[in-house]
Amino acid sequence: MDFNIILFDDFESLDVFGPVEVIGKLEKHYTIRYFSQSGGLIKSSQNAKVETLPLSEITSYDALLIPGGMGTRREVANGQLIDRLREIAEKTTFVLTVCTGSGLLAKAGLLKGRRATSNKRAFDWAASQDADVNWIKKSRWVADGKYYTSSGVSAGIDMTLGFVADRFGLATAESITAGIEYIWNRDKDFDPFCGK
Amino acid sequence: MDFNIILFDDFESLDVFGPVEVIGKLEKHYTIRYFSQSGGLIKSSQNAKVETLPLSEITSYDALLIPGGMGTRREVANGQLIDRLREIAEKTTFVLTVCTGSGLLAKAGLLKGRRATSNKRAFDWAASQDADVNWIKKSRWVADGKYYTSSGVSAGIDMTLGFVADRFGLATAESITAGIEYIWNRDKDFDPFCGK
Repeated sequence: MDFNIILFDDFESLDVFGPVEVIGKLEKHYTIRYFSQSGGLIKSSQNAKVETLPLSEITSYDALLIPGGMGTRREVANGQLIDRLREIAEKTTFVLTVCTGSGLLAKAGLLKGRRATSNKRAFDWAASQDADVNWIKKSRWVADGKYYTSSGVSAGIDMTLGFVADRFGLATAESITAGIEYIWNRDKDFDPFCGK
Repeated sequence: MDFNIILFDDFESLDVFGPVEVIGKLEKHYTIRYFSQSGGLIKSSQNAKVETLPLSEITSYDALLIPGGMGTRREVANGQLIDRLREIAEKTTFVLTVCTGSGLLAKAGLLKGRRATSNKRAFDWAASQDADVNWIKKSRWVADGKYYTSSGVSAGIDMTLGFVADRFGLATAESITAGIEYIWNRDKDFDPFCGK
């Protein structure tokens, strides 16, 4: 199976490479692949240019990750990307977002009637993409059916470990935390950044 | 000032993009730049290809980050890289390593007589690169003069926040943790992965 990641210029580095670090340890389950609307080099807000394939080359629909970052502010107005994202997400078994990535999913209408969260500092912006979402502010991450949405940046690592625990068992998630020496906040309702 | 990062094939993603996420918030101090021995696309162990400049294009010597990952096992035998790394590190004001990146520094002889740490699971390999280092096993990170070395993968984020606190003040480090919603283990001697 492929673990597909959608990049766009000005994505936030850790939104992608935190989850990637976790999923990379599941090499018997997943191959990680990086995509963007048209393919080519995509630049993060932290000045890294990462090579991507065009979205048309997605061929496996098990898991999809959508990061956040300043680029989401631009991409919510990119109708073509939102339409493609909707098509791909609808076909995909599990869809994960980090930070303001949930704003893109909301804009695509995919979170209607569902519980979801986002970055604390950009919460109102994300929530404004669709009022028909049950936006949960105090949450490290929220899982509602196939959609996993996380709070800001680092919360994406906790969420991805939560996803791994749900899908492949807690022992697998714990084994990954030991390998990457990560102190996992495994309680999705523990959110020390809410209300600060 | 530039914050220079040295990449090589099979570097570990989070070793780079954890610290990068922290340093990226210091944009008034640092521009992050990615280098490799000969430049071009460099592939992480998590299948991301990142564009780099050749080491010859380093022109600012304030800070240098050396990640770990499986590639370090190969690069310790790359005499040309080790020689260049020694030259660059000697000129640089602060040198940070994550995980087995300290094995490369040790191989270059730069940690002689200093305290340093590394990944818990590859500790003996790192330590074998130079017996004249005071290798500290139980430590999230170690700062000895200009050299900051961290334990495995995720510990690099804690170390980089420690570096920021030392250099730019604790309030700056704390402000970054809030922005990236990161639960910082700020005690460099708290190491839950030692002895497991």
